[in-house]
Amino acid sequence: MQDVVSDLIIRNDKRIVLLVMDGVGGLPQEKGGKTELETANTPNLDALAVEGECGLHLPIGFGITPGSAPGHLALFGYQPTDYPIGRGVVAALGIAFPIQSGDVAVRVNFATRDEEGRITDRRAGRIPTEKCAELCELLSAVTIPGVEIFIKPVKDYRAVVVFRGQGLSDHVADTDPQATGVKPHDPKATSANGKKTAEVAGQFIRQALELLKDRHPTNAVLVRGFAELPHIPSMEERFGLDPVVLAVYPDYKGVSRLVGMDVVEDLQGLDAQAAALRENWDRYTFFFVHHKYTDSRGEDGDFKAKVAEIEKVDSFVPRILDLKPDVLLVTGDHSTPAVMRAHSAHPVPFLLHARNLRPDAAAEFGERSCAAGLWGVIPGFMLMRLALSAAEKLAKFGA
Amino acid sequence: MQDVVSDLIIRNDKRIVLLVMDGVGGLPQEKGGKTELETANTPNLDALAVEGECGLHLPIGFGITPGSAPGHLALFGYQPTDYPIGRGVVAALGIAFPIQSGDVAVRVNFATRDEEGRITDRRAGRIPTEKCAELCELLSAVTIPGVEIFIKPVKDYRAVVVFRGQGLSDHVADTDPQATGVKPHDPKATSANGKKTAEVAGQFIRQALELLKDRHPTNAVLVRGFAELPHIPSMEERFGLDPVVLAVYPDYKGVSRLVGMDVVEDLQGLDAQAAALRENWDRYTFFFVHHKYTDSRGEDGDFKAKVAEIEKVDSFVPRILDLKPDVLLVTGDHSTPAVMRAHSAHPVPFLLHARNLRPDAAAEFGERSCAAGLWGVIPGFMLMRLALSAAEKLAKFGA
Repeated sequence: MQDVVSDLIIRNDKRIVLLVMDGVGGLPQEKGGKTELETANTPNLDALAVEGECGLHLPIGFGITPGSAPGHLALFGYQPTDYPIGRGVVAALGIAFPIQSGDVAVRVNFATRDEEGRITDRRAGRIPTEKCAELCELLSAVTIPGVEIFIKPVKDYRAVVVFRGQGLSDHVADTDPQATGVKPHDPKATSANGKKTAEVAGQFIRQALELLKDRHPTNAVLVRGFAELPHIPSMEERFGLDPVVLAVYPDYKGVSRLVGMDVVEDLQGLDAQAAALRENWDRYTFFFVHHKYTDSRGEDGDFKAKVAEIEKVDSFVPRILDLKPDVLLVTGDHSTPAVMRAHSAHPVPFLLHARNLRPDAAAEFGERSCAAGLWGVIPGFMLMRLALSAAEKLAKFGA
Repeated sequence: MQDVVSDLIIRNDKRIVLLVMDGVGGLPQEKGGKTELETANTPNLDALAVEGECGLHLPIGFGITPGSAPGHLALFGYQPTDYPIGRGVVAALGIAFPIQSGDVAVRVNFATRDEEGRITDRRAGRIPTEKCAELCELLSAVTIPGVEIFIKPVKDYRAVVVFRGQGLSDHVADTDPQATGVKPHDPKATSANGKKTAEVAGQFIRQALELLKDRHPTNAVLVRGFAELPHIPSMEERFGLDPVVLAVYPDYKGVSRLVGMDVVEDLQGLDAQAAALRENWDRYTFFFVHHKYTDSRGEDGDFKAKVAEIEKVDSFVPRILDLKPDVLLVTGDHSTPAVMRAHSAHPVPFLLHARNLRPDAAAEFGERSCAAGLWGVIPGFMLMRLALSAAEKLAKFGA
């Protein structure tokens, strides 16, 4: 199906705005109650829902709880299961490391070994992140000719190392033995392509062990999840869009870069995002505006604060409408119900606003209202097609 | 997608109950009326529908009327079109023959031939089942060295033969010429693997013809649909579940065995099923409870009696809830509207009850109410994903 869409792409200057309230989908606090979105006072979004087409989307699929990166890939028009993002890349994106095509990113765990080199603790007593940062600083002394090495702390005992150079590949097996009392594996190539990277990883580990030898309990490293950037066709290539991301948090800039978006840096919140939207309005045809704090307050378990974040975004909506976008799509990358304090698999409400839409029964922007909307429950990556179509960017199929 | 789910499986001790009212979906008796399920007084199911998530499912696909075996495969989480069950195996499962891996099951039709061996009636005058049983008894005298042979009546002129032995295969073509006035084909191997079985089938037919030679009009046999058990990954393997079936009828135990369920034998009805559920509660994580008579009364065309069966199941529901299952899924394997006296392709109502579900508009358990529920019309095999997710048995996809 995807190729069908690529063949129909019409490049025009109509503008699509994708407004994402991260983790917006929710649940009632008590039986019979309303969700966060249903509770929030959202006159602007409600008006758009009445005029527009509504529904719910599944970012990955039935029953699957989305991570942030695949949840966003879906919103950018890509079926996430077609583009698995390896563990090392996830780690690098998660700390906003500017990973490039050809880089190989690998998760590093600081660990403890005994005098024979056997692993006694795969997590080095779960050291704090500050300690991890200090050790990464130490390991930045590792040098390998022809290869740039970046080692950065992630969280607790976890770090990420990125190798940059010619001829690298992620075809290398983990060294983590997944058990204690045994020695780590040597990094082994899983195909001929992986040979050079396996050697590079071997050198990295040997130098790291030397640097860490007096640092019990953090006197070992285990590496796992060798990963290259997935080869995702850009949004320009696939959808004929000139896309830009207006986000505060590095993770979302990272996943946007994966699909070839330009990035506006140093945006501190909705005011800055509104200003950047206006400033860049003539330069792009697709604007991804991301609001993180709906998700953050959901993860905190703070129902009221999540409601307040939704209301902040509602107040921001007129500043988008002032620019008269041809298409406005408002949704989330997944649900983060405050009562669950976590991402969840529940379908995510969306509204599509443009000219020439089919009226439906959705009377406001909320989970139940969207369930009564035109579209029912649809795959997340199909939203891009609806947006492209509403922006007259898809030609007729057949005569 | 299926592999994605397998990669996300979390094994925990949360318990899922799948309560199947066979053929529960229905139609009104007269225009403007209610369906069987809508007519039934079901306070317990209605309460669950209000609290839970509702929808309709298509066991096989749009417009496809499900047989019992594929209808249940869908409920067990398998897309039935990925696991075709050959005609011989369907026949063997249908009479609850305990077919084993490696067996080859074949449909047998008693037929009539003339003195030259040409088929004059492919159905031997549609003899009654009792006559068929008597002929199967006669044919049980067939012996082939190294092969166990089981021949059992199915219905009317139809029987099934199961060959058990080393090196058998279903790569053998039908002998039924699908026409009269011609001789049956010899059983021919369709690949090298089928050679031994073709010879076995040839011997079986020759001995059968000898035993039947004075039995006009049932003096011939035609065989078709050579089939082995399909290789279906078990529910343990695919979903990390420890499953058990609590069913009265052999067919449902048969299809459950196909996906590796344990079977509790000698259950005579809902009381025994409730007791068995309680007794086995600590031993399993997935319980399939099957009620046959909703379908039977539908096939009888007895609307009122089907309503009464639904009400019996409703009264049984509190005995499940007493055990506090983490997830309860109530549905059917297909529709059997009494007005049609047969399975039908109509979507089947379902309700999912668990913690942390999205409230929806379903105000009772019925076809129209479920159509207004959260999920709309979804593929049947996706219900397992919703149940696994609600039981916290699926990890997040990506970071």
